[in-house]
Amino acid sequence: MTWKLTKSETDNDNLLINESLLSLGNGYLGVRGNFEEGYKEGFKSIRGTYINAFHDEVEISYGEKLFAFPEKQQKLVNVIDGQTVEIYIDDERFSLFEGEIIHFKRNLHMDAGFSERIVHWKSPKGKEVNLYFKRIVSFATKELFAIDIKIEPITLVHHVRIVSNVNGDVSNFVDKSDPRVASGHAKRLHVTEVRQEEAYSIVKDKTFATNLEVACLSFSKVIAENYQYDRKALDSSTSEVYLFEGNQTIQFTKFNIYTDTLRHGDDVAEKAVDVYQHTKEKSFANLLVEQKGYLDQFWNKSDVKIGGAEELQQSIRFSIYQLLQSAGKERVSNIAAKGLSGEGYEGHYFWDTEIYMLPVFLMTHPEIAKNLLLQRYSILDSARARAREMGHKKGALFPWRTITGPESSAFFPAGTAQYHISADIAYSYIQYYLVTKDEDFLKDYMAEVLFETARLWVDTGHMLNGQFRIDNVTGPDEYTCIVNNNYYTNAMAKHNLLWAAKMHRLLKETNNDVLTELVERLGVTEEEVDEWQAAGENMYLPYDEGQKISAQDDSFLSKARWDLENTPKEKFPLLLNYHPLTLYRYQVSKQADTVLSHFLLEDEQDLETIKNSYDYYEKVTTHDSSLSYCVFSIMASRLGYKEKAYRYFNETSRLDLDNTHGNTKDGLHLANMGGTWLAIVFGFAGLRLKESGLSLSPTLPEEWTSLQFQLQYQNRFLRANIEKDAVTYLILDGEDLTITHKGRDISLVKGKEVRV
Amino acid sequence: MTWKLTKSETDNDNLLINESLLSLGNGYLGVRGNFEEGYKEGFKSIRGTYINAFHDEVEISYGEKLFAFPEKQQKLVNVIDGQTVEIYIDDERFSLFEGEIIHFKRNLHMDAGFSERIVHWKSPKGKEVNLYFKRIVSFATKELFAIDIKIEPITLVHHVRIVSNVNGDVSNFVDKSDPRVASGHAKRLHVTEVRQEEAYSIVKDKTFATNLEVACLSFSKVIAENYQYDRKALDSSTSEVYLFEGNQTIQFTKFNIYTDTLRHGDDVAEKAVDVYQHTKEKSFANLLVEQKGYLDQFWNKSDVKIGGAEELQQSIRFSIYQLLQSAGKERVSNIAAKGLSGEGYEGHYFWDTEIYMLPVFLMTHPEIAKNLLLQRYSILDSARARAREMGHKKGALFPWRTITGPESSAFFPAGTAQYHISADIAYSYIQYYLVTKDEDFLKDYMAEVLFETARLWVDTGHMLNGQFRIDNVTGPDEYTCIVNNNYYTNAMAKHNLLWAAKMHRLLKETNNDVLTELVERLGVTEEEVDEWQAAGENMYLPYDEGQKISAQDDSFLSKARWDLENTPKEKFPLLLNYHPLTLYRYQVSKQADTVLSHFLLEDEQDLETIKNSYDYYEKVTTHDSSLSYCVFSIMASRLGYKEKAYRYFNETSRLDLDNTHGNTKDGLHLANMGGTWLAIVFGFAGLRLKESGLSLSPTLPEEWTSLQFQLQYQNRFLRANIEKDAVTYLILDGEDLTITHKGRDISLVKGKEVRV
Repeated sequence: MTWKLTKSETDNDNLLINESLLSLGNGYLGVRGNFEEGYKEGFKSIRGTYINAFHDEVEISYGEKLFAFPEKQQKLVNVIDGQTVEIYIDDERFSLFEGEIIHFKRNLHMDAGFSERIVHWKSPKGKEVNLYFKRIVSFATKELFAIDIKIEPITLVHHVRIVSNVNGDVSNFVDKSDPRVASGHAKRLHVTEVRQEEAYSIVKDKTFATNLEVACLSFSKVIAENYQYDRKALDSSTSEVYLFEGNQTIQFTKFNIYTDTLRHGDDVAEKAVDVYQHTKEKSFANLLVEQKGYLDQFWNKSDVKIGGAEELQQSIRFSIYQLLQSAGKERVSNIAAKGLSGEGYEGHYFWDTEIYMLPVFLMTHPEIAKNLLLQRYSILDSARARAREMGHKKGALFPWRTITGPESSAFFPAGTAQYHISADIAYSYIQYYLVTKDEDFLKDYMAEVLFETARLWVDTGHMLNGQFRIDNVTGPDEYTCIVNNNYYTNAMAKHNLLWAAKMHRLLKETNNDVLTELVERLGVTEEEVDEWQAAGENMYLPYDEGQKISAQDDSFLSKARWDLENTPKEKFPLLLNYHPLTLYRYQVSKQADTVLSHFLLEDEQDLETIKNSYDYYEKVTTHDSSLSYCVFSIMASRLGYKEKAYRYFNETSRLDLDNTHGNTKDGLHLANMGGTWLAIVFGFAGLRLKESGLSLSPTLPEEWTSLQFQLQYQNRFLRANIEKDAVTYLILDGEDLTITHKGRDISLVKGKEVRV
Repeated sequence: MTWKLTKSETDNDNLLINESLLSLGNGYLGVRGNFEEGYKEGFKSIRGTYINAFHDEVEISYGEKLFAFPEKQQKLVNVIDGQTVEIYIDDERFSLFEGEIIHFKRNLHMDAGFSERIVHWKSPKGKEVNLYFKRIVSFATKELFAIDIKIEPITLVHHVRIVSNVNGDVSNFVDKSDPRVASGHAKRLHVTEVRQEEAYSIVKDKTFATNLEVACLSFSKVIAENYQYDRKALDSSTSEVYLFEGNQTIQFTKFNIYTDTLRHGDDVAEKAVDVYQHTKEKSFANLLVEQKGYLDQFWNKSDVKIGGAEELQQSIRFSIYQLLQSAGKERVSNIAAKGLSGEGYEGHYFWDTEIYMLPVFLMTHPEIAKNLLLQRYSILDSARARAREMGHKKGALFPWRTITGPESSAFFPAGTAQYHISADIAYSYIQYYLVTKDEDFLKDYMAEVLFETARLWVDTGHMLNGQFRIDNVTGPDEYTCIVNNNYYTNAMAKHNLLWAAKMHRLLKETNNDVLTELVERLGVTEEEVDEWQAAGENMYLPYDEGQKISAQDDSFLSKARWDLENTPKEKFPLLLNYHPLTLYRYQVSKQADTVLSHFLLEDEQDLETIKNSYDYYEKVTTHDSSLSYCVFSIMASRLGYKEKAYRYFNETSRLDLDNTHGNTKDGLHLANMGGTWLAIVFGFAGLRLKESGLSLSPTLPEEWTSLQFQLQYQNRFLRANIEKDAVTYLILDGEDLTITHKGRDISLVKGKEVRV
């Protein structure tokens, strides 16, 4: 059961949620778990097919537009719909909302990478059939989305008709009643070509503003006897009709190949045909085998095994699997807040990637992590341009939300003001370097990113009485916007600045040629490097001496406390029930802010401060953000709050599976998926990555009998196995390594399990 | 010359500016200084007729809409256009952009209340005529706007044709390139009726959303011989055509009567006919006499005479005159930021009224001031509702911008966050009370307003370590938004709170019945009153001990200083060239903030602090707001900075006349007009109004030979005359009075000039 997610609801609310939960993707292409034949009249559906980073631009309206407010916003586009297959049993149209459902079940197979729908249906006129739907979005051939349908008559059936459409006249989902998905501009594509060839059809669409093209080449395979076939190209869709005579079992497989301008250049239709040439011989069974092969390899490195907690075992696998499905694997794409599972947050990339998701790949599939970082590198010019627009003479300010670079946030207090994203990106570059020791990466990308982000901080902050201060930014907590000296931001900026200076020194010693070329290109002076060092060393980190806690910002602790206890449940999330000014006026945090900083940069404070801070901020945090529980779980583990660590972990790991935030229908909370993994590996297992090396400090939750996971670290493949009374470490592949276990050095040799 | 504003430009830029400068109004109706016959093809014109408070509602778009962001915005509507009169001289259409202008001049007569246009025109074919246009917006009959045109042939003219239209198909002005007037929604009215009666025509329009109606009844009078007359009612307009045969002088007078739902109830057309019945016998000459009579009385109380500075004499008269033209004189209307002279700021009422304009009326025409205050009282329920929406359990939060009550600001950091408007309104209620000692006003309105605003402060702020603090508001300086303990806000709130408690005590002693009824109705408890007193007494006013200055807010002084010296001129106003976050990060003020507070509440600090603060904030203030110079002038006078006081006064008084802010075309800066008066009477003459009485401390600018003005104070009519070597005071009407002159008590007796 832990490799499978099973669903059988047919009410509209759950169908919408299951569209997200049962979505399929491969990082390039994503398809929501819709029904091929649709729902019944009046049911809402977010019928979606997405290509990562494939976007249009829409105008942002402002009641009052001020300087450098983004004029446009990028938006992930729902592309050509290849899902539709209608089935008629003796002229009765198959629908789960007509006749009788004798058996119905849906499965997502996370070990094998496909979803299925199993139906035993009795038509209104009493005809019974078994229907088996299977779907794959292929990892081997990223352009490919295939649907396999087997129809088995149970009672006598005279004929079966299948109508398979590919529709180019598609829109994004709009719900006027929900501000999170109501930004309008639903129709962003127009059909530019519909054509039927001998062996396949092609539908081509183009976005209105960005002029990006997407093609869907579709072809079908049939295993059956006695059938007629007809097809036509309509204005904006293609239609294939199969008529199967006689009482027979029918297997129908539909192959949809998606290509787009961003990956396939100008002639997307031609490129789709190329993919077709490599695909046309494959059966659905072949695809299943390929897929399984890919996933076996993946799980070999990624699986986390939990003993004694089946539901959580399923959750963690679901989280890892959805991360894999969502993560862009080319430079043009990253991981959207909702992955490829929905349209929430317009398909934008946020800091979620760096702080919550990238570490998972970094420690299991560093090549995927590297690609995510290079996507950020590819938008460095946009970040430089945004910094200029925001009045900075130097440096790069990464956009708070974007797809290909332009800032797409329409509310700056909780958008552009979150300058910390630039330090977050720098942080993950540093983490990548620590984990891989990839010197080429340092020379080719990392140094430049660190230098440009360090410049941003020097230009943003200023020295006052020997302290470097950063005014008017917003930290992770969006209930407290535009503040001075947000602890999180300052600590991350400090790290950014000092590492920039350090890498400058390192390159000077080891690769002066590379450094010379780089600083000349960027115009970086020695004085600037001294400024980075000085700003970093003198960074002001607000601290409350009385309570011995880090202060979230200069004024947070002097505000009135929000009365969380007496706030009715229906008023959460507060964001949807109080004006931002009301929230800003109080000590109330949407999510981990200072506590997150204490996780990412634990050496900035002593343990007492970290503990006091945790105790303090826990009381003022609503966890209205899905990014919060996991951090509290990790830090509870760090502080020995075992019960809390486990409770927060549960909240994290079941967030989408139990729809606890109520908006899973708009897409999965991918950062929270990452957070689930982090809460295990950085939380329970206490992993830390520092210059001094890799350390673990595992504590097994009481409820579990064991915990096992694998890590990639500096070209080694490691396994940790944590049981009640012992922890074992094993190098599965790679050279000897010394790690730290609960503060004690342990030497590991390949193939030799060490038990501690 | 000082009673007249003369213009003769015909270029588009100046025509637009002159539309504002030569606008006419009476507080109810306003008409921009357009040409009856229009400009030439391709020239921009803001052709406008406005009825104070007559508005529609338009949706506000937000890229990201959060809780309690106003969904709609009220908007002053450009109403039915009755200005159009076309003149054909022997079939050549008169236009200042065809043929030859031999003479052209326009005058605004501020003593007589009309505008005129004098033209000696030679047509393309060589016909010469003199044309005299006069316009009145009547103070005696507020609904009436009349145009009088005299046509005198110079060369032989065979016939003259006049086409006079009233057009109901009107729109508001839109300029996509200017964010201040680009909010769209231009068309807000539709025509509901067009009809021709025997003696007049009627056009009726209705707004789209608010369903307010406006009617324009129009009729004409002609003095001429030999003419034919024709007229028709079209779909959305009426047209009258007069054909005058022979070479004769023609006088044509067009009377437009405007009625609207807000004042005239449901049948606006019928009410227009009522007004017509009272107006139809009047000639234009009669109107001029009435108007002069009204203005003689007005100027008798309002005129400020400056000796030795003709240009400034004109400015101050222009300012006072425009204030009169703009001020609503019924409870339904107030003074819009642009008066009735343009569409900038959507015709909204801001704190401008209370802090910059109301004092002028308070000290010269308290009955107009009272009406302005009662307009605020009439929206108290809206203010209560807004407070609830903003999460306050009690009290009233006045909208930052509104017409009839609903908050209409679309950018809360520089809108709703300016909570100080509630204290500003309370402040002017208190000022009114000090100047009039009107006990009925206290009982009927003031106590309720003070109590409800005091409640707001108690609910907004909180006690910390014995200090009452107010977090997350924006003070007057819009370059520093959402701050803690803005000095201005806290000082004004303190005043508000202590006066609320004081008036509670006073009523308890003197009118306990009234108080009992009121506190029962409002549910005010004794504990609450104690809270007001405690919050007021313990109000935290941020102070910098080192520099001995009041701190604009908790963090202003610790920010980096904006490098004003090296900011290029074209980057001002900064608002239009830097992102708000960039501005917020620095010590840079758009306008007087703390300095304004030191003017309004000078007893909160000692003179040294006030002086140091002035010196400090002057260096960080850009005066990008038109509300700034006058305050700096007043406080320069207070501090003995004579040269600065005069320089800032000059900037203030000529702002629109010289279009120094570059946007006079969108309407006049009415608050700055008030500021001009304040800079003289509160500035140079040093007027202060306190519980202790009325005091003056005059200093005549070096450049002037004398300054004379009148004041109304507690049922007295006073005159002050300031000369180089002496000041004289005189009670023109009313009982004996002791005032303070430069700290010394002076007893005044009616009719007896006292020279000091």
